[in-house]
Amino acid sequence: MAKAPPILARVFRGPRVESAHRGMVAVADARGTLLGGCGDPDAAVYTRSTAKPFQTMPLLEAGGEKAFRLGDDEIALMCASHGGEPRHVRTAGSILRKGGFTAADLACGAHAPMHEASARELARRGDSPTALHNNCSGKHAGMLLACRLLDLPAASYAEPGHPLQRRIRATLARYAGVPESDLAVAVDGCSLPVFRLPLSALAAAYARLLSARLPGEERPAAAARARIVRAMTQSPFMVAGSGRFTTDFIAAGRGRWIGKEGAEGVYAVGLAPSSAGKAVGIAFKIEDGSARPRDAVTLDILSRLGRLPQETRRAFAAYAEPRVTNARGLEVGRIEAEVPISARAPRKAKR
Amino acid sequence: MAKAPPILARVFRGPRVESAHRGMVAVADARGTLLGGCGDPDAAVYTRSTAKPFQTMPLLEAGGEKAFRLGDDEIALMCASHGGEPRHVRTAGSILRKGGFTAADLACGAHAPMHEASARELARRGDSPTALHNNCSGKHAGMLLACRLLDLPAASYAEPGHPLQRRIRATLARYAGVPESDLAVAVDGCSLPVFRLPLSALAAAYARLLSARLPGEERPAAAARARIVRAMTQSPFMVAGSGRFTTDFIAAGRGRWIGKEGAEGVYAVGLAPSSAGKAVGIAFKIEDGSARPRDAVTLDILSRLGRLPQETRRAFAAYAEPRVTNARGLEVGRIEAEVPISARAPRKAKR
Repeated sequence: MAKAPPILARVFRGPRVESAHRGMVAVADARGTLLGGCGDPDAAVYTRSTAKPFQTMPLLEAGGEKAFRLGDDEIALMCASHGGEPRHVRTAGSILRKGGFTAADLACGAHAPMHEASARELARRGDSPTALHNNCSGKHAGMLLACRLLDLPAASYAEPGHPLQRRIRATLARYAGVPESDLAVAVDGCSLPVFRLPLSALAAAYARLLSARLPGEERPAAAARARIVRAMTQSPFMVAGSGRFTTDFIAAGRGRWIGKEGAEGVYAVGLAPSSAGKAVGIAFKIEDGSARPRDAVTLDILSRLGRLPQETRRAFAAYAEPRVTNARGLEVGRIEAEVPISARAPRKAKR
Repeated sequence: MAKAPPILARVFRGPRVESAHRGMVAVADARGTLLGGCGDPDAAVYTRSTAKPFQTMPLLEAGGEKAFRLGDDEIALMCASHGGEPRHVRTAGSILRKGGFTAADLACGAHAPMHEASARELARRGDSPTALHNNCSGKHAGMLLACRLLDLPAASYAEPGHPLQRRIRATLARYAGVPESDLAVAVDGCSLPVFRLPLSALAAAYARLLSARLPGEERPAAAARARIVRAMTQSPFMVAGSGRFTTDFIAAGRGRWIGKEGAEGVYAVGLAPSSAGKAVGIAFKIEDGSARPRDAVTLDILSRLGRLPQETRRAFAAYAEPRVTNARGLEVGRIEAEVPISARAPRKAKR
């Protein structure tokens, strides 16, 4: 039996620990060198929504930005796990219209908006959620545009064997530095193929996403990923939404980083090359799949890597050490992240 | 650092594990003998709502059933983490009225009904949830009756130093076989004191709750706990609600067992004495606090103890091996409980 991953965060009730979240962390550079981590940094994980920037690349590589006059909001929404707020829903609709599609063409299924006030407002009006409210609607709408642009069948775009999905898989494999045949595929929450790869490879993929240039990379690919990063940093609201860590975190970075959550406790961060150094990617997985400790764990890792400016740490206190409150709003506990990452003797990340 | 508890359940996506839930389990008899378990069965845990039957005892010990003409539904609701469905809300109101109280006297705070359709219906009508919808409203209403009956101040009933809360703490300590001074106290989700004790002591408390007779126990206490168990088994809907494992599980037991969930992944089961043997208590805690694997873990433990009838196991397939479905309702994975409990050389449970 594999060794248990270490505790990354503890949930206190009063002065005592009530629950704990374990997980594994990988920190890597664009060469695929593992710079640090804890637990098994090569553990196989499903990328879930951390793959979205790579799933959006084929559309932009093929010239989708010009062809459909896409702006920051639209490109950012394609990379989003959005809250289903009215602006998200309108933007998803606008992407669809540019390809002559409607919500009925989306294969993602409907779920209530993740943004609670928007969900309540929908319920108050007696309306049912549609596929546009699905947190993945932007990604799906972008894939439909890619089908239009590349003259691929749109009805079957979500099938694992569809040429667009094969192209996406090849893109992710390339940036993760993993042979395509090693990427196991399952079905995601939104019915698209979801990929499984070593956590260290996901970290390396985010380092590459943020890198200035990559050896052997073709120009359209380099332009596509730079455009995606720019859209996410210019339009962080579209990447998640109101009151969401990812949105506030990207906004606070002002171009220095991006962050992206995935279901089941996955998170990935890409740090842009600093004046002194190179791009760095971070990926972690909460073993139990909980999103609860994710924000605090992200900030603790950045802090330990010396990449979290003091003013951001202060402004993000509510994310870094979340209070546990009860039904009357009384503070009854807190969440404390303490991630035992260690710098490692650099070695190649697992392929 | 304490050894990591073992994995109790795995969450699969396709054929591969995506997430895992660890935890500790204790199985004990009414003498406090530990019969089996895994992880650290003496780990200190907050009981959360598994304490509710014991929190209700003082009211019944003092003659509350007769004084307020309480029926199964009302007593069961006092031991409930209910869904806030209309029947629950009405019953909570009826308990309150019997003592001349209203919802304004409840200290539990308001939250949206746990039962989703009831929450949606409330939102559709534009109504806000009240303290009656709080899953703990029955317990709180019962405490107000106890104050009325015992002539204690009602306004401060939720304070840890209140005479009723001190009586409750003594009751739980007695049934758990733990010195009262060892019961650490914090604040629960509903603002009441919540108690911390060894998991093995919680298991023993549930064995005692279901026992025929206990040495040295006074008659009113014995009658009170028998009445509580009868109410829970006669009125399982009130203990949880529609589509809830605890309700269906208690109903399927037809008097042979009770089960009660607590927040943060706690669960306790009391097995009535079988023709062959004695009462048994089971308690477990999911380390990460998740409720997700709880039903499957409960059934797996009972099955391994040889206490789950084949027909119940078959009827409970959806609880025993829950399917993971996505936004389109496609089955994309499953949860598999595999609890490595071992029978142990019997020893005294930790005091």
